[in-house]
Amino acid sequence: MCKKFVYLFDEGNGSMRELLGGKGANLAEMTGLGMPVPQGFTITTEACTQYYADGGDINDEIKSTISEYVKKLEDITGKRFGDAVNPLLVSVRSGARASMPGMMDTILNLGMNDEVVAGFAKKTGNPRFAYDSYRRFVQMYSDVVMEIDKSYFEKLIDDAKKKKGVTHDTELTADDLKALTESFKAAYRNNIGADFPSDPAEQLLGAIKAVFRSWDNSRAVAYRRINDIPSSWGTAVNIQSMVFGNMGDTSGTGVAFSRDPSTGEHKLYGEFLMNAQGEDVVAGIRTPHTIEQMKELNPTAYEDFCKIAHKLDDHYRDMQDMEFTIEEGKLYMLQTRNGKRTAAAALKVACDLVDEKKITEKEAVAMIDPKQLEALLHPQFDADALKAAKPIGSGLPASPGAACGRVVFSAEDATDWADKGADVILVRLETSPEDIEGMHRAKGILTARGGMTSHAAVVARGMGACCVAGCGDIVIDEAGKTFALGGKTFKEGDYISLDGSKGKIYGEAVKTTEAVIPSDFHRLMGWADAYRTMKVRTNADTPRDAAQSVRFGAEGIGLCRTEHMFFEPDRISAVREMIISETAEQRKNALARILPMQRGDFEAIYEAMEGRPVTIRLLDPPLHEFLPTEDADIEALAKEMGAETSSLKIKIKSLREFNPMMGHRGCRLDITYPEIGEMQITAIIEAAINVQKKHPELNIVPEIMIPLVGELKELQYVKSIITDTADRIIAQSGVKLEYLVGTMIEIPRAALTADEIAKDAQFFSFGTNDLTQMTFGFSRDDAGNFLSSYYEKKIYENDPFARLDQNGVGKLISLAVKLGRETRPDIKMGICGEHGGDPSSVAFCFKAGLDYVSCSPFRIPVARLAAAQAAIRAAEE
Amino acid sequence: MCKKFVYLFDEGNGSMRELLGGKGANLAEMTGLGMPVPQGFTITTEACTQYYADGGDINDEIKSTISEYVKKLEDITGKRFGDAVNPLLVSVRSGARASMPGMMDTILNLGMNDEVVAGFAKKTGNPRFAYDSYRRFVQMYSDVVMEIDKSYFEKLIDDAKKKKGVTHDTELTADDLKALTESFKAAYRNNIGADFPSDPAEQLLGAIKAVFRSWDNSRAVAYRRINDIPSSWGTAVNIQSMVFGNMGDTSGTGVAFSRDPSTGEHKLYGEFLMNAQGEDVVAGIRTPHTIEQMKELNPTAYEDFCKIAHKLDDHYRDMQDMEFTIEEGKLYMLQTRNGKRTAAAALKVACDLVDEKKITEKEAVAMIDPKQLEALLHPQFDADALKAAKPIGSGLPASPGAACGRVVFSAEDATDWADKGADVILVRLETSPEDIEGMHRAKGILTARGGMTSHAAVVARGMGACCVAGCGDIVIDEAGKTFALGGKTFKEGDYISLDGSKGKIYGEAVKTTEAVIPSDFHRLMGWADAYRTMKVRTNADTPRDAAQSVRFGAEGIGLCRTEHMFFEPDRISAVREMIISETAEQRKNALARILPMQRGDFEAIYEAMEGRPVTIRLLDPPLHEFLPTEDADIEALAKEMGAETSSLKIKIKSLREFNPMMGHRGCRLDITYPEIGEMQITAIIEAAINVQKKHPELNIVPEIMIPLVGELKELQYVKSIITDTADRIIAQSGVKLEYLVGTMIEIPRAALTADEIAKDAQFFSFGTNDLTQMTFGFSRDDAGNFLSSYYEKKIYENDPFARLDQNGVGKLISLAVKLGRETRPDIKMGICGEHGGDPSSVAFCFKAGLDYVSCSPFRIPVARLAAAQAAIRAAEE
Repeated sequence: MCKKFVYLFDEGNGSMRELLGGKGANLAEMTGLGMPVPQGFTITTEACTQYYADGGDINDEIKSTISEYVKKLEDITGKRFGDAVNPLLVSVRSGARASMPGMMDTILNLGMNDEVVAGFAKKTGNPRFAYDSYRRFVQMYSDVVMEIDKSYFEKLIDDAKKKKGVTHDTELTADDLKALTESFKAAYRNNIGADFPSDPAEQLLGAIKAVFRSWDNSRAVAYRRINDIPSSWGTAVNIQSMVFGNMGDTSGTGVAFSRDPSTGEHKLYGEFLMNAQGEDVVAGIRTPHTIEQMKELNPTAYEDFCKIAHKLDDHYRDMQDMEFTIEEGKLYMLQTRNGKRTAAAALKVACDLVDEKKITEKEAVAMIDPKQLEALLHPQFDADALKAAKPIGSGLPASPGAACGRVVFSAEDATDWADKGADVILVRLETSPEDIEGMHRAKGILTARGGMTSHAAVVARGMGACCVAGCGDIVIDEAGKTFALGGKTFKEGDYISLDGSKGKIYGEAVKTTEAVIPSDFHRLMGWADAYRTMKVRTNADTPRDAAQSVRFGAEGIGLCRTEHMFFEPDRISAVREMIISETAEQRKNALARILPMQRGDFEAIYEAMEGRPVTIRLLDPPLHEFLPTEDADIEALAKEMGAETSSLKIKIKSLREFNPMMGHRGCRLDITYPEIGEMQITAIIEAAINVQKKHPELNIVPEIMIPLVGELKELQYVKSIITDTADRIIAQSGVKLEYLVGTMIEIPRAALTADEIAKDAQFFSFGTNDLTQMTFGFSRDDAGNFLSSYYEKKIYENDPFARLDQNGVGKLISLAVKLGRETRPDIKMGICGEHGGDPSSVAFCFKAGLDYVSCSPFRIPVARLAAAQAAIRAAEE
Repeated sequence: MCKKFVYLFDEGNGSMRELLGGKGANLAEMTGLGMPVPQGFTITTEACTQYYADGGDINDEIKSTISEYVKKLEDITGKRFGDAVNPLLVSVRSGARASMPGMMDTILNLGMNDEVVAGFAKKTGNPRFAYDSYRRFVQMYSDVVMEIDKSYFEKLIDDAKKKKGVTHDTELTADDLKALTESFKAAYRNNIGADFPSDPAEQLLGAIKAVFRSWDNSRAVAYRRINDIPSSWGTAVNIQSMVFGNMGDTSGTGVAFSRDPSTGEHKLYGEFLMNAQGEDVVAGIRTPHTIEQMKELNPTAYEDFCKIAHKLDDHYRDMQDMEFTIEEGKLYMLQTRNGKRTAAAALKVACDLVDEKKITEKEAVAMIDPKQLEALLHPQFDADALKAAKPIGSGLPASPGAACGRVVFSAEDATDWADKGADVILVRLETSPEDIEGMHRAKGILTARGGMTSHAAVVARGMGACCVAGCGDIVIDEAGKTFALGGKTFKEGDYISLDGSKGKIYGEAVKTTEAVIPSDFHRLMGWADAYRTMKVRTNADTPRDAAQSVRFGAEGIGLCRTEHMFFEPDRISAVREMIISETAEQRKNALARILPMQRGDFEAIYEAMEGRPVTIRLLDPPLHEFLPTEDADIEALAKEMGAETSSLKIKIKSLREFNPMMGHRGCRLDITYPEIGEMQITAIIEAAINVQKKHPELNIVPEIMIPLVGELKELQYVKSIITDTADRIIAQSGVKLEYLVGTMIEIPRAALTADEIAKDAQFFSFGTNDLTQMTFGFSRDDAGNFLSSYYEKKIYENDPFARLDQNGVGKLISLAVKLGRETRPDIKMGICGEHGGDPSSVAFCFKAGLDYVSCSPFRIPVARLAAAQAAIRAAEE
């Protein structure tokens, strides 16, 4: 059967979004509802796909179908393409399944030519209006369809005004505009080498092609990448007969929302311009009226619009964003769609719709975009202050929220300035674990290197601080305490502002507003939790983060990294001594100094989690990460330790690795230095016993997690250290304490041999950061050097460190889940990589059958909502 | 059904090697052949496995079975355990499936105690002999079973001799020996805290346990690791009634081969000692007679032995290594097994057996150990010279053969000394591509760091030069041109010698003999090729290596790395200029300088390969590998390029990576800098056209290989560069030229998505070095830091870079083969990692269904033979 590539508006309906695009489906739906919609037809998204399949050409079949539908439209409207007496003029608009900025928007007045304009002038009795419409069409077509630089036309307008000695376009007469159009057409000829097309059918095909082409322009591709829209979807094209809001004082045009998009309040909200076309509203040259003022200016149209707005809000059971035009007093609807809204508005609209009994609680849960919730939990820029500010550069949106403060270049300086009461932004080439203390004191962090899972990004997300990472354009002179960006140099103490949600950098102070969590948030999260089946845990390394996570609804800790604790200034020297040790004996002595501190950490964390499960990962990073690299620091360390600088340098050098990511770390440390593991187990178990004794009402069950396992025997060896140590301590204590032993699955080989690994693992936690690195074979610290080329060349549509690669990494996870459960049906499985807080990845984890996801504290609400939505979708399928 | 844990010799046969071990099965087989074997029984390997399953204890079932068989043996021999008149004395020997040095060898005379020895003295009429046997037993048991230090007993013997004023053991009388035995027993009591066991049954259980225990001692574990023997096999224990070669001048003992193990010549070869026990032959205190001399000394026994040797050689259809004892003129066979032999002997024996019509050509092919062939192709130490030398250290046996020469510490010095006619050994911390020239001039290479696939190892294997890598004990002062090892310091110009097959280092000149390839080699390889179905290609980067490979039988190049060519001194500056370029234009100019050189390389390689397929891999390593790192070198480069040192340093620093193995390399380079790919394709295609024109009789079909692909779109992007460039050049040339485009499968994600990748790949080449790194998540350059712990703790039994990990990496390969063929049934698949020359990995590749393996030139015969054996085994299964 042949595909139907074109639909009249009255042949479609609102459910045909995939085929007709959002705009086309809604125009059809409004037509079906009997609303006043200027008629037209929609060329399907499949025609777009066909266009690309045909090598960027519209094939004859589709061309002839389009002609056929032009005829149908002529019959419906009683107007004819190219007819001097009663010409059919149309708008051409793109319309993808999902609303997509960056694609070709609109061409108006298509169908104009020299004959038509003359007849149109006669018919409307308004030659100036007719020639202005013609002029606009030629200009728009040349720009949008033929991609002739706008400046040509702007210059011609300026010339015309100069010649005439006027300052405003409106002062040009019909004859002026006619002459101007001729000069536009000459410019067209010069640029293109052919005459401006006078045949409306040719104009139409050109415009349709331009829409199809715009689907693949770089802005659209970038938008799709960020918003997870597959390039295979394609866009539809909507051809609609023109109505004119600029036919005089009984005409006008506007956009309005059925509810307030900022607050969610249930009242009409919008703008309206008399005697204007749509572009004038958007252009912002004339100040529009509010939608309420329309009541006085055009009460009938206002009343009609109110009814329609109400009906659409009811019909779609969601806030509508509508465009309309009034032509000589008569209202026409040009578009409706679900309106974009702030996070606060999204929550209020959802809750109100439930209260209005229009949607169920389940539907309310399903309609919120989980990613939006993050904005609620972080400071944001003041909307007005932001309008006045211009970004000077951008990087990766590594941790959401907005921050404003004084520039500092080291963790120490961050602490110093913060002690004096200043808000600070820490600017670094990249951060390292040594910077933790200063990072905690900063409002925001800006780095020149590193990606979405770099140290700065991970730590900032954990703290809820704003972070822009990997700003490659920045030139930092850390020693000189200056940085240059966007042609300006900033020194210590200068103000800058960061938008961590969008990755933007402002070279000035931009006022921020504190995060305020509305009551709707708690109401909606309550509903979400009722539908959610997958648990949500947190990645937390400190009692403070643990407590924060509990407030955000964490049901346990999925990943407590023990190494961050090692960097505290009061213990790093013992850690370094441990590393530098020449013998197991020396190492044990240093470890004995660390033990009480680490035990204290765990006690506080167990207490903060109030009996919820706590998964503690044994030491993971390579030991050289804890050692100083600069000569001065090494000398200081040598002095402190009473060692010789030269021999210390040799030791430090010997620990350096070619590829530390794949080096001597994770369980490999416990295999070479079992005493490190013994100390950590001792701390974990003794702390659990102490807290259990102190709080008999809690049920403390530490989950001990072994990192970087790739082979069953590695797991067995480290597990034997764990059980030997733990069982001995428990037996001595006389307290009854259970504990679990499990493993990270973050090495491809562990996933491939998960049936074997599961023999000795009571739980699996998928470490998708490392698993992504190794499955793709790239280092997240270095990938910045080539990932931009990958996006540009459309090789990747999104960052595999931010969004789980279901095709590759996901295959390994699914395999490991299957193999693991074959061996141990009741094995507990979760994910603790950064993907645990990404909605599409959470949905994947649900489908893969994981028991929980674990993410940084501030992403817990996102994960809770995403998990609820996944459960709802699964129940529906 | 109960397992049968014990077999009398006449209950088994030679096919029961798995259960009875090699020694036990052969004793049973000889018994079945009616040969004079002292009777006994074998405790099975399953009993050993059970011993470990029972936590290191012999369970009651097995214990009672052993008692039962002791009774049976008593009945057969008419002797009784502990009987003073006619005592049963036995030997206890370990015997695994495969012969395994490092395990407990032998306990003789078990069953002796104070009563037995007295009776034995009476029965033999030789009290000195009886007490000497007792003394030896107590000493051996204490040492081997109870692990009491040998020195205790040696000192007691010395004391006894001093007291008596004699110098030789033989001068001690029966009474002296009786007293000595008492003092041995006292030493035993002091060490163990219990009396020496007088109950033969208790002695026997102790000895059996010691055998079982020795299966897991560190030497045995190390041997298994090196020889790919699974620890699950276990060892059998052979209990055999004693015969005595030391009962006087009509007694004796010896070992002999049915053919010469050095040359393979078909004549008896062995040694024989009168009036001695087996250990005396091995100990080397007395000079033994040759086996021919036995003819005069004991003609009957000699004649009997000749017949038996001949019969066993016939029966086993292989050279036999036999142990025998003559007790008062009567010959007893104690052991037979297939004899170890040199590579040359292995070939000659196989060919002779075919000529003798004892085996088929196919059996001849199957009986050669492929690994042995490598020794034939490389210089070896002169056997006599080697006896006098003692190694001073060891490292990894990274490239086989022996080398002797003067120490140099830099590639430049290697060239200088070599120019003056000296043989040199290059000693480096590690080698880098810059050292290539000097490495080519060296006879051998010794490095302190790096593993079996380090740069030094790979390059050395490619050249056929000897290499010992990763000698961690060596302390190198490169600046001072000295190194220290084994307590000695060596300076430039000193002689050292390397054994690259065993990883040994000698601190002196040890004479080497050139490789001489015997005619049997070509004969056997011819047979092998007749059975082989899988192709064998070579990894070769130069015309010289290519030509060498063809001589070794390569059927094409599976991997031509293009980067090694970049390091030639006459082109590195253009390469560096290319890398330092700020614009694509500059880069193109530098590439234009490289183009003619690279084209010349390919022309020479195509010519050397005479129309065989040549797979050329596009540039793979990260660009910073080509740049200097030392300040002086950077300054020199800046001068040469007319650039500023400071900005050059910044550029070089900006290219550095945290994890270069997973960094900006492989196809990622072509995606960011398409002009690099364009230059390489131009060189590949133009060279092919030139050679095709020059040699119309050849069919030149370049196979262009894209490295490090993880995603179909990467492949597609680079493929489009290839086809655009190649098709244009071919069209312009007017020559008809085909070429293939394929990819490495070396990233786990490529294997996981091989069905997609195969859409645009005409061949897959598994790069198992990188695939192993990423599947295991470890860097081969850093793994040395922990792999020794892994071996020690039995986590890995062998090096996954030397032997393909079938359980993990192999799973990915099998998956990729399956997925790839689903999409493209005729896709060509091969392997080009270092595993391509490892016999067990070659066998895996055959099973996985690959079309070819590719390996370094000197391993081609190994791969050819291994592939033939795999095909033979598969046909048999």
